[in-house]
Amino acid sequence: MNVNGRHYRTIWVARDGRSVEIIDQARLPHRFVSARLRTLDDAARAIRDMHVRGAPLIGATAAFGICLAMRADTSDAALKLAKRQLLATRPTAVNLRWALDRVVTALRDYQDEERLEAAWQLSSEICDEDVRINESIGEHGLSLLRGIHKSKPAGAPVNILTHCNAGWLATVDWGTALAPIYKAHDAGLPIHVWVDETRPRNQGASLTAWELGSHGVPHTVIVDNAGGHLMQRGEVDLCIVGTDRTTSTGDVANKIGTYLKALAAHDNDVPFYVALPGPTIDWTLSDGLREIPIENRDAREVTHVRGASGATARTTEVRLTPEASAAANPAFDVTPARLVTGLITERGICPASSAGLSSLYPEKIA
Amino acid sequence: MNVNGRHYRTIWVARDGRSVEIIDQARLPHRFVSARLRTLDDAARAIRDMHVRGAPLIGATAAFGICLAMRADTSDAALKLAKRQLLATRPTAVNLRWALDRVVTALRDYQDEERLEAAWQLSSEICDEDVRINESIGEHGLSLLRGIHKSKPAGAPVNILTHCNAGWLATVDWGTALAPIYKAHDAGLPIHVWVDETRPRNQGASLTAWELGSHGVPHTVIVDNAGGHLMQRGEVDLCIVGTDRTTSTGDVANKIGTYLKALAAHDNDVPFYVALPGPTIDWTLSDGLREIPIENRDAREVTHVRGASGATARTTEVRLTPEASAAANPAFDVTPARLVTGLITERGICPASSAGLSSLYPEKIA
Repeated sequence: MNVNGRHYRTIWVARDGRSVEIIDQARLPHRFVSARLRTLDDAARAIRDMHVRGAPLIGATAAFGICLAMRADTSDAALKLAKRQLLATRPTAVNLRWALDRVVTALRDYQDEERLEAAWQLSSEICDEDVRINESIGEHGLSLLRGIHKSKPAGAPVNILTHCNAGWLATVDWGTALAPIYKAHDAGLPIHVWVDETRPRNQGASLTAWELGSHGVPHTVIVDNAGGHLMQRGEVDLCIVGTDRTTSTGDVANKIGTYLKALAAHDNDVPFYVALPGPTIDWTLSDGLREIPIENRDAREVTHVRGASGATARTTEVRLTPEASAAANPAFDVTPARLVTGLITERGICPASSAGLSSLYPEKIA
Repeated sequence: MNVNGRHYRTIWVARDGRSVEIIDQARLPHRFVSARLRTLDDAARAIRDMHVRGAPLIGATAAFGICLAMRADTSDAALKLAKRQLLATRPTAVNLRWALDRVVTALRDYQDEERLEAAWQLSSEICDEDVRINESIGEHGLSLLRGIHKSKPAGAPVNILTHCNAGWLATVDWGTALAPIYKAHDAGLPIHVWVDETRPRNQGASLTAWELGSHGVPHTVIVDNAGGHLMQRGEVDLCIVGTDRTTSTGDVANKIGTYLKALAAHDNDVPFYVALPGPTIDWTLSDGLREIPIENRDAREVTHVRGASGATARTTEVRLTPEASAAANPAFDVTPARLVTGLITERGICPASSAGLSSLYPEKIA
């Protein structure tokens, strides 16, 4: 999407054709800078230290990491080592394994001397495919937003609440939950987004707010506590969130706090949609609450927060809690399908149910 | 309650008998220091700049502010001016007006030369009465916690979730929502408290965590997003929160985000209790959502956060959001009575309904 009127992806091949550039997301929202990845180690570090994040973008970065490894050594041994190193960066990221399996399996069929060029080709395909999928999600979501827009008084914006960052920064471009919003904004529909700050890591306040602002989409940041109140007051027309993993029955694991917003939406008859690419569906699971393991992350993300301080906007970490107090940090929660109005996928919109999902993905049903 | 094994109230008459000491809450949780109030201006500043906060404590501080004003001048004119100055510190605080009306009306009946002593007497009575009310809330809540404790496996702690700070720091002593917790802890019941950090002002992470820790009550700080997930997992036995204003029908206005926790409690069959002193009930209101105005506070509370930084734990403010992004900051929300299991008052526990409240406060019913 756009930053100061210029179009960007989150990752691209540098002008030299031999290295990769990324938007350094660890510096956002206070600094917009790109970083150059020249080696396998650079790519691994970018993923591990979260200069890139978001499942699709992690997958794309890992694929480019294989390219950078092939620049130094195209042997089978090097390929194996590169895959292992990249896999270890974010052990629970499903797209990371998927992208690496895809690239490495394909490269094994090439001669050593053909591998470097093939790796660049495969990585670019992975990126383009991600963009196509997200654009399709955006188109399907757009029809939904057009419908809501028509039901409102002329000129009134469609008010959308989102949680965390499922925007273009989490993907190669467009995003998942935010793709319909960009499509609608670009089509001239009046849109306003309520951005949950999304404690503890504040991806809403830092990333979602930044990318919406950079593309020119009107938005307002709120604390995670505020969404229910806004829905009670009729100030939210619909919610759209992303997901890390969806069961075959439509239960949705997403950033902690998503469940609370779904409850509030249900209590106030506000439609609650989840946007997802098909590969996010885990067809082996049928009960999200029982079957999806929830990662407990470092308590320091709760007890401390980072922001910009002073005139120079220097990144500073401050402690919020008494030193003696413990903290717990479950990173995701599960929203049961009964609270989800619909799933927006690259193949269309369906109910959050086995029947709904199998109507869109019939090939997945045994 | 206790700090490092020594008992404190939040406000007390200093040893000199002529000035007032408070715990300086603006410094918590990173520094535990008291501050001396010697003049009316000192008292007004302490309230306005939130060195004291919490409705009952604001009322008590205002009463002492009248004492300090009388030290300088006991005339009718001085009394009137002092009341006006103190009222202006926090325009929406109901207890502030209540305490000032009570003290000033009483003092008008005294001769000028008797007023100073009478003011000290009245202020002490207001403090003692607050402590008695809160202790009664604690005793009634204790019976509830004993019941839950008995239903659990031997030795298993009762897990209580609370939001914001309705502890002794918000009152003269004991608190409202936390009074049952202190009573239970002091009675030897195993208690563990999940402390919502309570963005944007973080009164949970800073004040509730500090006061529970100082008194020795086991607790864990969580982000506001996490409570629903914990309830889904059976890790919360009940919720207890405070309230700023309760309608005659049992609708509860409290810190923003309370409604989301009540929804999650309801969805998971977790009892949701609200602790309140009788004077918090607004008998003139019957529909909280329509009738209770919600204060919108400064957006800077959302875009920025304060904490301790560096080895010296210096208070530092950091910005969380992009400079170009707007923020909204509704400070309270309304939890409808249908989501409230019961109200814990100084007169006992009742259903959150007109019938429940009028059974405890029959004199209020026309």
